[in-house]
Amino acid sequence: MIILDGKKTSSDIKNEIAAEVISLIDKGMKKPHLAAILVGDNGASETYVNAKVKACNRVGYDSTLVRLDENITEEFLVKEIIKINKNDSIDGLIVQLPLPKHINEKKIINTISVEKDVDGFHPLNIGNMTLNLPSFIPATPAGILELLDRYKIETLGKNCVVLGRSHIVGLPISILMARNNQPGNSTVTIVHSKSKNIKDICRKADILIVALGIANFVTKDMLKEGVCIIDVGITRVKSDKTKSGWKLIGDVDFENVRDTCSYITPVPGGVGPMTIAMLLKNTLLASKSKI
Amino acid sequence: MIILDGKKTSSDIKNEIAAEVISLIDKGMKKPHLAAILVGDNGASETYVNAKVKACNRVGYDSTLVRLDENITEEFLVKEIIKINKNDSIDGLIVQLPLPKHINEKKIINTISVEKDVDGFHPLNIGNMTLNLPSFIPATPAGILELLDRYKIETLGKNCVVLGRSHIVGLPISILMARNNQPGNSTVTIVHSKSKNIKDICRKADILIVALGIANFVTKDMLKEGVCIIDVGITRVKSDKTKSGWKLIGDVDFENVRDTCSYITPVPGGVGPMTIAMLLKNTLLASKSKI
Repeated sequence: MIILDGKKTSSDIKNEIAAEVISLIDKGMKKPHLAAILVGDNGASETYVNAKVKACNRVGYDSTLVRLDENITEEFLVKEIIKINKNDSIDGLIVQLPLPKHINEKKIINTISVEKDVDGFHPLNIGNMTLNLPSFIPATPAGILELLDRYKIETLGKNCVVLGRSHIVGLPISILMARNNQPGNSTVTIVHSKSKNIKDICRKADILIVALGIANFVTKDMLKEGVCIIDVGITRVKSDKTKSGWKLIGDVDFENVRDTCSYITPVPGGVGPMTIAMLLKNTLLASKSKI
Repeated sequence: MIILDGKKTSSDIKNEIAAEVISLIDKGMKKPHLAAILVGDNGASETYVNAKVKACNRVGYDSTLVRLDENITEEFLVKEIIKINKNDSIDGLIVQLPLPKHINEKKIINTISVEKDVDGFHPLNIGNMTLNLPSFIPATPAGILELLDRYKIETLGKNCVVLGRSHIVGLPISILMARNNQPGNSTVTIVHSKSKNIKDICRKADILIVALGIANFVTKDMLKEGVCIIDVGITRVKSDKTKSGWKLIGDVDFENVRDTCSYITPVPGGVGPMTIAMLLKNTLLASKSKI
């Protein structure tokens, strides 16, 4: 069994990006620049945004963090986004989700300029992705493709089962794995809350991508010998074995399945770290497309 | 076995639309208006466009057919589309495909205003469809959903296998059948030219949607007893039993499978006639959204 080491891979990618930024600067071009908007003071959102800003610094990008009060109006946020859309010095813009309930997330995502939508959540980016046209691919699915690619895992003609149909992971990765691309060209089955006989379906999978958010959902009896498992789930559970009193576990019962699979992403340290790396990659792409 | 009668259903839909047009006019509103652009003199395209114009007349729509020479430039076509985009009296615009090779189809589709894209081919429509947001759904997949709906075929939790991943049928119907919608909520597997063990996969299907364009591809040994079959394929083959010397056959060997399935669309007279009905429905939607 081979661990798909997202932490190491993500670090490799950041090094590659950092080297490319240096070469851009050497050519007299400007650094990529990511702007992030954070509304309110949700603790988890704060952590995520800070990690993104830190990652920008690490690879030599400029970054701008716009902090806005919880109580701003939707109209105010729209105006802030339009300002950034028009600001030529900024290449990529993300609005950290979730937003306060009085703000319509869909409207906000639609306001972000498609050329700066490095989260890849804009419907036009999703449409282009679906049609296999150039687009920003949402960071988590992009991270999964990158792991499969770097570990040279064959996807062509393989049975890929995706558990979960969320708009940011399950649905886009199901589309991406079925596209006529490398990685891709899998026979994809998408499974969700209304599906039946989930165990039987999983047992057919050569590649199993799990993005349900249900701790330890996948067990050995659901697997074919030699399956490659991508575990996107992260659940925080109490633990008496850690200093913090908490630990993170995935949607897959790692210890139970480890001898059955050929490849597996650990949690933490699998798909998670890849996400920020892919956001940086999208930002680089946005920056270069303007040259 | 029950025949999913696309001819009758399509006729019912046209009657419903015609009644709605009369009621729109009674309320002092304008008729829906579809414009079609036909470039060159491809015989099949001519037939299709004429059928669409005829269908518009049948339900009381206004229609405009713009015929352009095979040798027009891409730039000229773009200008024609922009003119129609700006023309408030026109609700829907279709550009008959295929276009001559010197014209970039993707660019042309991207030029059509999303609000008038009643073919539903614009990437923004595809993205909105994927994200389960309001959008125009491409006519053939929309026709399949409509048939399933009108014949009250349960799709929730069913295994749906889609053969083919074309951007106008297989791919969108696979997305639509998996959405959290009615019809929808199926466990969807998308099968394509790179797939293996296609027979085994088909045998799991409760609903089998076939859009390969390979005559008589699906045979009895590939089916589960009681499957519902939607056959999108149309191939013209020589026949000594018809006056014309030709007949149309589907991707499914109808005579061979008829006793195994619970429902089946015939070819011709199944999905085909639904397509124009759904184009009319999209045009009505476009017209009403402007009110």
